[in-house]
Amino acid sequence: MGDKTLSKELIARLPRYFRYLDDYMNVGIKKVSSGELSHKMNVTASQIRHDLGHFTVSGQQGYGYNVKELYEEIKRVLGLNDEKKVIIVGAGNIGKALISHRMFRNRGFKLIGVFDIAEMAEISGHRVYPISKLPEFVQEYKPDIAILSVPSQEASIVAKELISLGIKALLNFCYVDLDVPDDVIVENVHLRDNLMVLAYKYDNLIKKKKK
Amino acid sequence: MGDKTLSKELIARLPRYFRYLDDYMNVGIKKVSSGELSHKMNVTASQIRHDLGHFTVSGQQGYGYNVKELYEEIKRVLGLNDEKKVIIVGAGNIGKALISHRMFRNRGFKLIGVFDIAEMAEISGHRVYPISKLPEFVQEYKPDIAILSVPSQEASIVAKELISLGIKALLNFCYVDLDVPDDVIVENVHLRDNLMVLAYKYDNLIKKKKK
Repeated sequence: MGDKTLSKELIARLPRYFRYLDDYMNVGIKKVSSGELSHKMNVTASQIRHDLGHFTVSGQQGYGYNVKELYEEIKRVLGLNDEKKVIIVGAGNIGKALISHRMFRNRGFKLIGVFDIAEMAEISGHRVYPISKLPEFVQEYKPDIAILSVPSQEASIVAKELISLGIKALLNFCYVDLDVPDDVIVENVHLRDNLMVLAYKYDNLIKKKKK
Repeated sequence: MGDKTLSKELIARLPRYFRYLDDYMNVGIKKVSSGELSHKMNVTASQIRHDLGHFTVSGQQGYGYNVKELYEEIKRVLGLNDEKKVIIVGAGNIGKALISHRMFRNRGFKLIGVFDIAEMAEISGHRVYPISKLPEFVQEYKPDIAILSVPSQEASIVAKELISLGIKALLNFCYVDLDVPDDVIVENVHLRDNLMVLAYKYDNLIKKKKK
């Protein structure tokens, strides 16, 4: 199938489908209906059927989707069949928390290196390399993804170095939007932005109540 | 103005506008054009003009927007004029990293309490309260926002308790989607989902290159 046809919204929903299907597998559920998925995902059942229509899986009216088949298909589409090699650059508070994050406990992503400007002891079994070793390391181990968790004022320069070394995918925890070439992908995690959006919605909720 | 009319997309962009305007203020820039903002925000200048048309600020063709005026207006719309009181529930790796996160260093959000099931020492100057003190604390200090960073298997039960105590806004770092009443707002930060979306895009980039 042509994965290219997936909308941004569907791409954003794929990890949630994957998560629920993983849960179903873990408790031994073999079939799931669009109605059940609709409830879990908080989208309409017709949206679910439309979403899953993009994948080559069998779903029958009144019978449901084959959980394992759908799980394998979404896993394939998400590119999780080939384990991605990840490095963390910046072992401050956030970087340290990420080293032992559950995202590296399942298949799919393998943390292969941690870098920082400061010399420091091993963290959760991971040796922290000086950032000066990046060129050598990237050349030898060819990481797929770099997580950027350096201080924000150093983000641009470190991102540039990573890109010049050939890294094409960045998960950016720094509080700046990176200016990158077209063939480099950035996903931003801006926690303060999340908090602001929450504050906005909260304020509007309170205002509505007062009316 | 009626803040209700803002689209989800614009709400999601507001923190970025706020961030850039803050940057401009800090370096003493007084006027900014839709063109400059367009470049920064990576949306079209006409989108910028449409976005900012929702706010009561003066923008003149060829002259630009008044940075301070726009900053104050977006700050007001985001609800940042009233400082929000935040608690962190769960002082594991992520919770610990959040305590000293920059989101609490600026105006707008004040961390007033940290809770955990385990007894532990002060973290970055914050005493960690046992979770059993939550009811008393919430009643006395009336936090606006709770950050949920407990282990995922405890997320639902802790969220239920927070909601029963009257908390209406949750920033959820647990790897589950919470089932909450209609008058409670949740913003999710699912880091593994971000990583999966990045992996998906990366794989498609690589495939495209191979063609």
